[in-house]
Amino acid sequence: MADDPINLLIRRIAAIPGLGPRSARRAALYLLTHRDHALAPLQDSLNDVAQNIVSCKQCGNLAASDPCPICTDHKRDTTCLCVVERVADLWALERAHAHFGRYHVLGGRLSAMDGIGPDDLPIKALIDRVKKENMKEIILALNATVESQATGHYLCEQLARQGIKTSMLAHGLPLGGELDYMDEGTIIAAFRARASPPS
Amino acid sequence: MADDPINLLIRRIAAIPGLGPRSARRAALYLLTHRDHALAPLQDSLNDVAQNIVSCKQCGNLAASDPCPICTDHKRDTTCLCVVERVADLWALERAHAHFGRYHVLGGRLSAMDGIGPDDLPIKALIDRVKKENMKEIILALNATVESQATGHYLCEQLARQGIKTSMLAHGLPLGGELDYMDEGTIIAAFRARASPPS
Repeated sequence: MADDPINLLIRRIAAIPGLGPRSARRAALYLLTHRDHALAPLQDSLNDVAQNIVSCKQCGNLAASDPCPICTDHKRDTTCLCVVERVADLWALERAHAHFGRYHVLGGRLSAMDGIGPDDLPIKALIDRVKKENMKEIILALNATVESQATGHYLCEQLARQGIKTSMLAHGLPLGGELDYMDEGTIIAAFRARASPPS
Repeated sequence: MADDPINLLIRRIAAIPGLGPRSARRAALYLLTHRDHALAPLQDSLNDVAQNIVSCKQCGNLAASDPCPICTDHKRDTTCLCVVERVADLWALERAHAHFGRYHVLGGRLSAMDGIGPDDLPIKALIDRVKKENMKEIILALNATVESQATGHYLCEQLARQGIKTSMLAHGLPLGGELDYMDEGTIIAAFRARASPPS
């Protein structure tokens, strides 16, 4: 049974993050019992992305064209660059309609645990791009984890040396968040960054 | 963006039960960034099952051969038939090594809500098979939901008219279950079916 096509499919679905063996089994069975409506379209889509999706050489986004639609959109602000760690973060910002300029996918973060030092990050490429494209504003939209924040502070320093001004995302209560459920770090960050309400 | 290959892939992954838009996005991004290790093998597996997996005409199981390996396994008891609703149930029983005879996938249950009456279930085919293969024991391994149990009782009646003896799965506490967390129906069922411990 271990090498039969169904078990192989289940193992390969279960290898996708966020899917365990149970949901993989359920997914495989759904696909097998809905061939025309689910299996065939999924095959088509996978073939399509495997053939057509490329990494944008300019920003690192994944898209059907290189440069990607964001890099070629002339309605977007070409002087404001938003630096993200991963493509998933870029997508999250796009879903939130948070940023109307260009992006730069850094592709990693400083991590002592994983042995990633400053030399392993493509910081020079970022600085070169910022200078070449004459960017006026750099927003570091990094995760609020310890490693990502350390990366942000390091990037700020390096960009400041080149005379480039940067900003980082604010810390505070997430919308709908209740104080009672917040960790102390978030409460202190929100307290320190308190501001008068907009009038 | 709505018709781009990535979004189409995400929508098609999200259509699989148990996967929401968020996990579909995560899965798509994982596949796109792990082409050799995840995307290509998944494509191969989907092509493989699409071409090679068939429904066993004898029992209704899904397998790479028809009749399926269970129906052709001569070490299994050919006189004991286990009736299940869906292929997923058959797989669950196989994982539990609960049954060493043959299976019969009914493919549905009586449901007033869904308008499925006795005439919509292939009961005649089941009775014909039981008679033709000279089965001695019929186990109705149906779910413990109201509709499935009603289906079980109806099947028992119909099989009894043909002189075929059937049994249904026991009700009681699941292993590791705590009384405090059990519903009243389960507690009553376990209480009524109480038995002396095996000596």
